[in-house]
Amino acid sequence: MAAAAPPLKDELDIVIPTIRNLDFLEMWRPFFQPYHLIIVQDGDPSKTIKVPDGFDYELYNRDDINKILGPRSSCISFKDSACRCFGYMVSKKKYIFTIDDDCFVANDPSGKQINALEQHIKNLLCPSTPLFFNTLYDPFREGADFVRGYPFSLREGVPTAVSHGLWLNIPDYDAPTQLVKPRERNSRYVDAVLTIPKGTLFPMCGMNLAFDRDLIGPAMYFGLMGDGQPIGRYDDMWAGWCIKVICDHLGLGVKTGLPYIWHSKASNPFVNLKKEYKGIFWQEEIIPFFQSATLSKDSTTVQKCYLELSKQVEEKLGKVDPYFVKLADAMETWIQAWDELNPTKAN
Amino acid sequence: MAAAAPPLKDELDIVIPTIRNLDFLEMWRPFFQPYHLIIVQDGDPSKTIKVPDGFDYELYNRDDINKILGPRSSCISFKDSACRCFGYMVSKKKYIFTIDDDCFVANDPSGKQINALEQHIKNLLCPSTPLFFNTLYDPFREGADFVRGYPFSLREGVPTAVSHGLWLNIPDYDAPTQLVKPRERNSRYVDAVLTIPKGTLFPMCGMNLAFDRDLIGPAMYFGLMGDGQPIGRYDDMWAGWCIKVICDHLGLGVKTGLPYIWHSKASNPFVNLKKEYKGIFWQEEIIPFFQSATLSKDSTTVQKCYLELSKQVEEKLGKVDPYFVKLADAMETWIQAWDELNPTKAN
Repeated sequence: MAAAAPPLKDELDIVIPTIRNLDFLEMWRPFFQPYHLIIVQDGDPSKTIKVPDGFDYELYNRDDINKILGPRSSCISFKDSACRCFGYMVSKKKYIFTIDDDCFVANDPSGKQINALEQHIKNLLCPSTPLFFNTLYDPFREGADFVRGYPFSLREGVPTAVSHGLWLNIPDYDAPTQLVKPRERNSRYVDAVLTIPKGTLFPMCGMNLAFDRDLIGPAMYFGLMGDGQPIGRYDDMWAGWCIKVICDHLGLGVKTGLPYIWHSKASNPFVNLKKEYKGIFWQEEIIPFFQSATLSKDSTTVQKCYLELSKQVEEKLGKVDPYFVKLADAMETWIQAWDELNPTKAN
Repeated sequence: MAAAAPPLKDELDIVIPTIRNLDFLEMWRPFFQPYHLIIVQDGDPSKTIKVPDGFDYELYNRDDINKILGPRSSCISFKDSACRCFGYMVSKKKYIFTIDDDCFVANDPSGKQINALEQHIKNLLCPSTPLFFNTLYDPFREGADFVRGYPFSLREGVPTAVSHGLWLNIPDYDAPTQLVKPRERNSRYVDAVLTIPKGTLFPMCGMNLAFDRDLIGPAMYFGLMGDGQPIGRYDDMWAGWCIKVICDHLGLGVKTGLPYIWHSKASNPFVNLKKEYKGIFWQEEIIPFFQSATLSKDSTTVQKCYLELSKQVEEKLGKVDPYFVKLADAMETWIQAWDELNPTKAN
């Protein structure tokens, strides 16, 4: 079973999708070097990705993915950072931390470098409180607790499945907001971690994200994006909607807030608009779908939940666009591939 | 209609329940002196409460309350700060800010004095976003916005009815937590305001609270506490559960977070335990009641919602203890008294 304390060296993989040399790791060296990296190379597989010396890693390019998954590789996006979810699948660890290669170490208000991974581990190792809001935020942080009026029967909390971290400098805005506010930077350091309440959806960003693979891994599918698909930049959103519905159903928690990373560079808003614009329409129907989605009592595992959800996607969102029929199909393929690579452990 | 900008001098009353001289106002003078105060004197009405020179105020003691409300004064608690809600009822202003007399001006991390009232007004004058969580918190704050993946159709938000502020130094803990952690102080300044999502309840503390009286006033009833009642210290909690259910039903928003005040002194945990202990049991049934409470489409005003809720309280919580039958009756009396003192304005 999991060790009860950080740093979980042998129980966590860092998953990095990339198309370039991983120079950004130099800044993370003191924090990441003890961990194993899974690098998912996107784009041209003949290109060589340089990884700084001293890191322990495995690297998969598109040829590797095709070879490992065979026809099921169709569920892994190409030319889109959604390909990162292949790394979740091949990991054998209990915890995953995934980060974009344009994210650097941020400083806290005192000027100290933030060990983002350490904070994610803290978030994942203490319970969540999705059933009632605590006004002093995470009651399990040092110097905090449940406030007056918080029901005692709910103070045990539920296991935390997901830790969603934030970004200083370049905020994670959509293309229209980027276009309207080209100079906006996020400089507000909010010293809080909180549980997203049950029944509430949120926009999950994949830039700085950690999760418990054993608890929620099979639902962390980043969908069909990029090459040959009508949409991009909704990979993490899709995963966020799915995991939240499933966490709510299974009694698991999702936290957001700390840690911050430093997001160095805004992506091109014109390119982003092209990728996003169908999503901007579609999400107006997707959100109500997920807000009202319910899963049956028989869905007692993440896999069963995910397959039930894929059927609902096909049935209800298939009417919005044929893309969702294809996506529902890929969701099933993803689960088949997951189960093949992750046969049930004998207890 | 309301002016669009702070400081709303002629549209806000400050309500203070007290049993002592209001020396604490000296520290608040630069911030409160422009406003009208409604002081609700609890306990012995023959005692004189001194108010520092220069404040514009009206003061009501128990004799005044009895005289103004007649037999309906039974709905106003005695020997409990729950009496403060009488002040909400006699106010003629659009906004109310209520604060305890052991709360002082706090400093932000830069050492600057926090104008709590100004922040409450900011919170109340910009919309809430209860239908979807924004990971950068209040999207209407300077330097923030809606993040990628936030549905555009929900970005208009809903009117904000309640602004719940927090406390540095002595946190608002229940008696058991006070007993277990006598030395705990809240020193974490969390620079955030956020909307409590629809469908989620929270423990609303009355120590540092502002609301829009026109939008939610008739539901801000602090219940039957103190003298002759089996329970205390659940006045603000009761109001919080009721207003949240009604705000959710009417499409109104509730914010929590900034501003902080400095809470100077912990109340006696032994006295508190005596007041709270029935509540500690009862809330285990009250919370599920409020979590599943639904209001009918016919309840289109706060008054109608509140009366419908009072009937459900009588029917469902009356089984828990006869106290709730009495409380349901007082809820009705409160609405009668409110409507008498606040006849509907001709538009």
